[in-house]
Amino acid sequence: MTDAGDRVKVVTNDEAVEGVLMPSESGKVVVKLESGYNIGIDKKKVKEIKVLEKYKKSEPAKAKVEAKKGLPTIAILHTGGTIASKVDYRTGGVVARFSPEELLEMFPELKEIANIKSKLVFQMFSEDMEPEHWQILAKEVQKEVDNGVNGIIVTHGTDTMHYTSSALSFMLENIPIPVILVGAQRSSDRGSSDAYDNVVSAAQFILKSDFAGVAVCMHKNMEDSACLIHLGTKVRKLHSSRRDAFKSVNVLPIAEVAREGKITILNKNYPKKGNKKFNLLDKIEKKVSIVKIHPGFDYKLLEFYENNGYKGLIIEGTGLGHLQTAVLDKNTEHHKKILETVRRICSKIPVVMTSQTLFGRVEMNVYSTGRDLQNAGVISGEDMLPETAFVKLAWLLGNYPKEKARELIGKNLRGEISERTDIRSTL
Amino acid sequence: MTDAGDRVKVVTNDEAVEGVLMPSESGKVVVKLESGYNIGIDKKKVKEIKVLEKYKKSEPAKAKVEAKKGLPTIAILHTGGTIASKVDYRTGGVVARFSPEELLEMFPELKEIANIKSKLVFQMFSEDMEPEHWQILAKEVQKEVDNGVNGIIVTHGTDTMHYTSSALSFMLENIPIPVILVGAQRSSDRGSSDAYDNVVSAAQFILKSDFAGVAVCMHKNMEDSACLIHLGTKVRKLHSSRRDAFKSVNVLPIAEVAREGKITILNKNYPKKGNKKFNLLDKIEKKVSIVKIHPGFDYKLLEFYENNGYKGLIIEGTGLGHLQTAVLDKNTEHHKKILETVRRICSKIPVVMTSQTLFGRVEMNVYSTGRDLQNAGVISGEDMLPETAFVKLAWLLGNYPKEKARELIGKNLRGEISERTDIRSTL
Repeated sequence: MTDAGDRVKVVTNDEAVEGVLMPSESGKVVVKLESGYNIGIDKKKVKEIKVLEKYKKSEPAKAKVEAKKGLPTIAILHTGGTIASKVDYRTGGVVARFSPEELLEMFPELKEIANIKSKLVFQMFSEDMEPEHWQILAKEVQKEVDNGVNGIIVTHGTDTMHYTSSALSFMLENIPIPVILVGAQRSSDRGSSDAYDNVVSAAQFILKSDFAGVAVCMHKNMEDSACLIHLGTKVRKLHSSRRDAFKSVNVLPIAEVAREGKITILNKNYPKKGNKKFNLLDKIEKKVSIVKIHPGFDYKLLEFYENNGYKGLIIEGTGLGHLQTAVLDKNTEHHKKILETVRRICSKIPVVMTSQTLFGRVEMNVYSTGRDLQNAGVISGEDMLPETAFVKLAWLLGNYPKEKARELIGKNLRGEISERTDIRSTL
Repeated sequence: MTDAGDRVKVVTNDEAVEGVLMPSESGKVVVKLESGYNIGIDKKKVKEIKVLEKYKKSEPAKAKVEAKKGLPTIAILHTGGTIASKVDYRTGGVVARFSPEELLEMFPELKEIANIKSKLVFQMFSEDMEPEHWQILAKEVQKEVDNGVNGIIVTHGTDTMHYTSSALSFMLENIPIPVILVGAQRSSDRGSSDAYDNVVSAAQFILKSDFAGVAVCMHKNMEDSACLIHLGTKVRKLHSSRRDAFKSVNVLPIAEVAREGKITILNKNYPKKGNKKFNLLDKIEKKVSIVKIHPGFDYKLLEFYENNGYKGLIIEGTGLGHLQTAVLDKNTEHHKKILETVRRICSKIPVVMTSQTLFGRVEMNVYSTGRDLQNAGVISGEDMLPETAFVKLAWLLGNYPKEKARELIGKNLRGEISERTDIRSTL
């Protein structure tokens, strides 16, 4: 008799596979390999499943963690994702198991440097996270600020971590402490997991820096030698699986945290601790979307947004912030319709141009295409990432009147628009 | 009296600006600065415009270019863009001026190494390029192949150059010669233009390599020290303005071309000259689009594609190829609707998953989200760029029956899917 969680050897005519048995799926025996990846084997092909070791439910550690006087306090807010997938992977079910005791078991070094308090806010993969979850999370952060903690670590799935870091950046105006989002590209129960370094580096940065804002802490490279602290509005997941998937775009990361805890500031331009009034602005407009331009783009898609009550739109254009507008021949006659539709939508709602190049700045004065689009009412997203521009517009429309949102979208509020280091290209 | 094209000094109360006068725009005097960027100055503020040098229309060179025996022949097909914007910028109008004589004037070294023939196919910015233009261009390439040229350079705007390079890659099956797309991030009339190096490096590569296929040649870095040859299906514009904006994604570039013409092969895995039958497959299905996933994504957008006769859809998902599908709480109840809609659309048309991380591979067997999407009928786009997957699906649906298109989308045809170097992650 086998149970999910057992260490097994599955034998077929072709092969023998060792790993942890997962709940079966539609006619397949699923085994989690040592590498952490799952393999599904057709049940019909299975000749034998040998149990190598029965699954033992680990007892939660009993030792009560006592607050040590003199040590700073870090709150860890858990939202799920790969970093929290230890239990999920073993049993196939999503079980909340993050008491402070268990966490300290996983990261024993943490209790040497800080008093850790831990709260499970969600247990979800980040691709399922919705704007409403950003609001709940922002409120939880506010509670911990009120509790007087020295910093907050948010564990998070990596898929949409940069959307959440942008959302928290805007919602938590003048936050007086560091809030560091941390994920993992390999689950914490694997020997090769990047979770440990990311969490401990985030804690080191919280304790040693004067940063007050929202950032992401992830691996610098494929090795475990250092982590980087990225500003929450300038970071993006740029690889589907590598541990150094997160990159700062158009700016340097704020800092590097070496494995022994040494902090090297790479970019002094970050929000610092001060006495500004902390303000939670957690409203969000959900009728905002991102539309990606491509050859063959259909103006009817723009009409979809117009006809479905959308309040704001981010265009992911080409190059310096373009889309097809010139009528040159019979194949481009519909470009007139595109430009007309853009103009009509812009008269109703804010439409913001970003670039699918991701790196670089939108420059809508260089070519006639950009000037035509500006004349039609499209607003330059400057050097904002499309994802950050999307979150910012949804947030602005939630918290400000439409005209104020239009005015603020091109203004730098949380480091999301960087200084223009190139020569002046527009008036 | 001033004319567009004159070298002028524009004096206001605040400043004096020198440059080339451009046609004025909506109450503004427009001056092209030495840097190549345009500046617009409110006409009301202008105190004086001094003409420093009248615009002289340059006479087309008279010398007839004669074919030299023994030299190979390169055909240059012009489509427009920044690289062709010399004249456009001076007068504000788009004038076709690319006789072989003028081209040799701009790139005199070319005639030392090859007989050059030149044809103006389009004069457009690439953001205006539509799938029909890919078809026209592919036919022009075929003509030159029939003419027996040794290689083809396509000058092209950079915004959508990677869409076109993908389209030509698929349309020109077993092309027996190299077709190299070349653009510029600064127009050819600027001292700082990258056009010269890109064109000459493309020519060097054509003459010295056994490559037979479609590639892009652009700068390796910010300096003019070397250019890179990127496979047409694995390249993407990743910066809005830098000359090294084009990067190979998930593979190494094919080769580096040093300024003195030395070729270094970086990736041996490229299509080589041989005796396979050259085949033009230039049909294309226009009802294909790319939809980008984000938190707050609305299933009604998927219904738009369903209700508007779309024949194929590329999803730009998160991470390993995800979108919101799990129902966890009241904020995720609509995920059921999303998954239902995905399942319904997949029963009608091919829906292909790619990742907005751009780098890395879609892996839909690792998490339950990916498995749910596969069960719903979503096809993995492997490590194809979203833009390449989009072009490929449109091309497949144009040239093959739907079921064949479904089968071929996940198979490597033109180097668009790279070898899996990671461990086996699926069965």
